[in-house]
Amino acid sequence: MSPGPKRRELAGVSVTRALLRGGRECSVATPRQLVEWMKQDKTCDELGAWTGLQLCSGSGSPAKWGSHPGRLPEGGKRDEDLVLPINSSLSVTLHQDQLKTTTTAAISKDFTEDRIWLNGREEDVEQPRLQACLREIRRLARKRRSAGDEDPAALGLSYKVHVASVNNFPTAAGLASSAAGYACLAYTLAQVYGVESDLSEVARRGSGSACRSLYGGFVEWQMGERADGKDSIARQVAPESHWPELRVLILVVSAEKKLTGSTAGMRTSVETSPLLRFRAESVVPARMAEMARCVRERDFPGFAQLTMKDSNQFHATCLDTFPPISYLSDTSRRVVHLVHRFNAHHGQTKVAYTFDAGPNAVVFALHDTVPEFVAAVRHCFPPESNGDKFLKGLPVPPVPLSDELKAVLDVDPTPGGVKYIIATQVGPGPQILEDPHAHLLGPDGLPKPAA
Amino acid sequence: MSPGPKRRELAGVSVTRALLRGGRECSVATPRQLVEWMKQDKTCDELGAWTGLQLCSGSGSPAKWGSHPGRLPEGGKRDEDLVLPINSSLSVTLHQDQLKTTTTAAISKDFTEDRIWLNGREEDVEQPRLQACLREIRRLARKRRSAGDEDPAALGLSYKVHVASVNNFPTAAGLASSAAGYACLAYTLAQVYGVESDLSEVARRGSGSACRSLYGGFVEWQMGERADGKDSIARQVAPESHWPELRVLILVVSAEKKLTGSTAGMRTSVETSPLLRFRAESVVPARMAEMARCVRERDFPGFAQLTMKDSNQFHATCLDTFPPISYLSDTSRRVVHLVHRFNAHHGQTKVAYTFDAGPNAVVFALHDTVPEFVAAVRHCFPPESNGDKFLKGLPVPPVPLSDELKAVLDVDPTPGGVKYIIATQVGPGPQILEDPHAHLLGPDGLPKPAA
Repeated sequence: MSPGPKRRELAGVSVTRALLRGGRECSVATPRQLVEWMKQDKTCDELGAWTGLQLCSGSGSPAKWGSHPGRLPEGGKRDEDLVLPINSSLSVTLHQDQLKTTTTAAISKDFTEDRIWLNGREEDVEQPRLQACLREIRRLARKRRSAGDEDPAALGLSYKVHVASVNNFPTAAGLASSAAGYACLAYTLAQVYGVESDLSEVARRGSGSACRSLYGGFVEWQMGERADGKDSIARQVAPESHWPELRVLILVVSAEKKLTGSTAGMRTSVETSPLLRFRAESVVPARMAEMARCVRERDFPGFAQLTMKDSNQFHATCLDTFPPISYLSDTSRRVVHLVHRFNAHHGQTKVAYTFDAGPNAVVFALHDTVPEFVAAVRHCFPPESNGDKFLKGLPVPPVPLSDELKAVLDVDPTPGGVKYIIATQVGPGPQILEDPHAHLLGPDGLPKPAA
Repeated sequence: MSPGPKRRELAGVSVTRALLRGGRECSVATPRQLVEWMKQDKTCDELGAWTGLQLCSGSGSPAKWGSHPGRLPEGGKRDEDLVLPINSSLSVTLHQDQLKTTTTAAISKDFTEDRIWLNGREEDVEQPRLQACLREIRRLARKRRSAGDEDPAALGLSYKVHVASVNNFPTAAGLASSAAGYACLAYTLAQVYGVESDLSEVARRGSGSACRSLYGGFVEWQMGERADGKDSIARQVAPESHWPELRVLILVVSAEKKLTGSTAGMRTSVETSPLLRFRAESVVPARMAEMARCVRERDFPGFAQLTMKDSNQFHATCLDTFPPISYLSDTSRRVVHLVHRFNAHHGQTKVAYTFDAGPNAVVFALHDTVPEFVAAVRHCFPPESNGDKFLKGLPVPPVPLSDELKAVLDVDPTPGGVKYIIATQVGPGPQILEDPHAHLLGPDGLPKPAA
C-alpha cells in the first residue's frame, strides 16, 4: 500500500458549488452521462445543453463557434477548443443548501497517475475535457512559479492528482450540471496548486458555461471579442445578498423518453437555424442590458417577463434547428399555461418560468408569492403517492387555493405530472470546506467509504 | 309555406372544395368552432391559424398587419379588415375524394332574409366575416351590371340568399378548414350571382388564406405590396396533375386538451415575436423561390426538407410569441422523431412532416414510400381497437417492417397516439356539381333532410 500523500498535499480541498443553470449546461448531466459525454470528447454544450441561459436571464444561449466561419458573424474565427459563446448570457447561482457539488482533490508524489471518481465510481481520467482542465491549471501554476513566486504549492506541479466529486441532488432529477462540476473542479484544483488567477478559462475548457459557476449571485458570461477568448469571462453582476426576497422553485417533471438525440446541439443549431444567428446578433444584446437593469433595480415583473421571453426564444431556436430539438414536454407546456393563468388572475407578473435543456421548469417568484403558487401546482399536478415528499428544500407553508384562482387555472389535473418541487434561492459561490470530515478522499488518497 | 324560389334562382350551385392547409387556416375549425369564431368577429387567422402555410411550402406564415404600423416593415399600413399576410406562402390543395366541403347557395325574391346552415344546423348569418363576403360578392355583381353586362344573373342582386355547407371529413379530426369553407362559399356565391372576376378578395375577407383554396394543385398566395390589398392574390404554381407520384398522409393524433388559448394568434405574434418579423422579411422570400423550384422540378428531397424546416420555423415563431403558443404535442414530436429516423435509415429524405395550428401531422412522401412508412407508423403507434379503420382514403398495401428499420426507430410504442391516417393526394380546385341530388337545398330553399 502506498504510504499516502504527504500532509501538505493531503490538504485536499473540498468545494461546494451549486449552480442552476444559466446556460447551456446539460440539465440531464447525471454523473454517468457526464462521463459518457466526456468520453465522446463533447462538452455539454454540444449535447443537450443549449438552454440559453435563460435561467434568470434576459440573455442568450451561449454557443461555441469557430468551426463554421463562413456562417458566423464578424468578429473572428474562434478555436472550437476554447469553448466560446456566440452571445453573452446571465445566470443565477442556486443555493448549496439545496443543490451542490462537493469535490476533493489531492496531489502526492506517491500517486502514479491522475485518477477521478464521480459519485463514488472511478471514471476514465483521459477524457479530453478533463485533460484540458488539468493542463490549463498546471500551466497557470507553472506560470506563477516562473514569475518567481516561491509558493510551496508550486512544488506539487509534477505530482499526479486524485479527484473525487459528488452531487447532493438526485441524479435522476435532470438537474445535475457539468457546469457546476467543472467549476467546482477548477476551483478545487486551483486551491491545491495554489493558483489565484481568474479561473474562467480553466472552467470553460471543461464546460463552456462552467465559468459562470465560479461566482455566487447573479453572474454574466461575457462573450468577449478576442479570437483567443481571453476576454470571454464571467463576472458577478450582483451578489447573492442583493435580492433576498427572490425564490426559485424547481419543478421536476416525470421522466419521459428523450425524443431528441442529445448529440444534436449547438453546433447543429449554428449551422442550420437562421433564427439563432438573428437572436444572438440582434435580440440578445439589448436583453442583456435590460436584464442587468431589472436585477439591479430588483424589478420583478421586468425580470420575470424577460426571463420567460428569453426561455421561449431559446427553445424556438432549438425548434428551428434541423433536425429540430424539442426539450419541452406536454407537462412543461402545462406549467407554462399555469404560470400565465396565475399571472393573469393577479393582473401582474408574479411568477416566471424558464426551461433548460430538458422538461423541468425553473420558476422564479418573490417569497410572498411562493405559498399560493405551490398550492396552484399541487392543484394542477396532484401528487400521486409522495404527498409528504412533494416539496423539498426551503419550507413553504400550505395555503388554501381560492375558488376564483381554481376557475382561472381551468385545467384537467395531471396527477404525477410534476414529481416534486425543490424550493431554493440564490446562493453564494464556491466555499472551502475546512472540516476534514467533509473531504471525500482519505489519507491514502482514495475515496472514503460512503458514510 | 313559401312558394319557393324561382327556377333560375333555384339553380343553387354546389361546389366541392378540399384544401389541406397551407397556411393559417384553423386546423381545428369544426363547423361549430367556425361559427363561434365568426360570432367573435375573428378570422381563423387570429385564432389558431397561424401555421405558416408550411403544408407544402417553403413559405411563410401569412399574417395580417396594419394595426401596428410602428412595428411593421415598410410597405404601408394595411387595413386589418383586408386580411393581408405579412409574407407570401405556398400550399397544396388536397383531393376532394378524401376531404371536401360541399356548399349550395340559392337566391329568391321570396327569401325574406339571408340564412346559412353549416352541417345541417342553422347559424347566425350576421357574423361579420360572412357579411363581408356577401357584401363583397354583391359589390362585384353590381359592378358587373353597371358595366352594362345584361347577364340575367345580375337581376338577383337584391334577393336574399340561402346557403348550406357540409364537410365530408370528420369534424372532430381537427382538419376542417375555414379556408376551404370560405373558398367554397365565395365560389358558390359567384356562380349564383354570375360573378366571374378574381375571387381572391371575396374569399380572403372570410378567411385570409381562403384565397389559396380557390385553386387546385400547388398554390401561392402572394402577399402583394399595395395598401389596398388588390395585389394580394392567389395563383396556381402547378396543377394537380404536375406531380402524380406525390402522396399526402394526414396523421390524426388523439385529442389533447388545448393548452394555448386559441384567441392568441397572429396579432399577438406580430406584436411580440422578434423572430417572426425576421422570418417574414429575411427567410421566407428565398424559401418561396426555392420551394417553387422544388415543385417545378419535382425535387422531392428538396421539397421535403424545406417543408420540414419551414414548419419547424413557423412553430418556433409561435413559441417566441408572448405568451407562447404551442400547437405541437408530445405525439407530434414523436412523429417528427419517426420521420427523421425513417429518413436516416434510408440515407435520404423520403418523408416530410408539416404541422398546422394543431398537433395533427401532415406527411408527404412519394407513392412507393407510403406502404413502408404506414407500417412504421403502425409500429410506433399501434392502433388500439380500430385496426381495420386505422387507414382511411387511398388504399395502401400492407408490408412487413424490417428488423433493421424497427431497430433504427428505437421507440417505445405509444398505443393510440395516432388515431387514424387519411391517405390522399393533391387535388383539383372547386368543382361544380351538376347532379341535383348533390344539392344541399331543396326546392323550398331549405336544407334537404339528411339522407
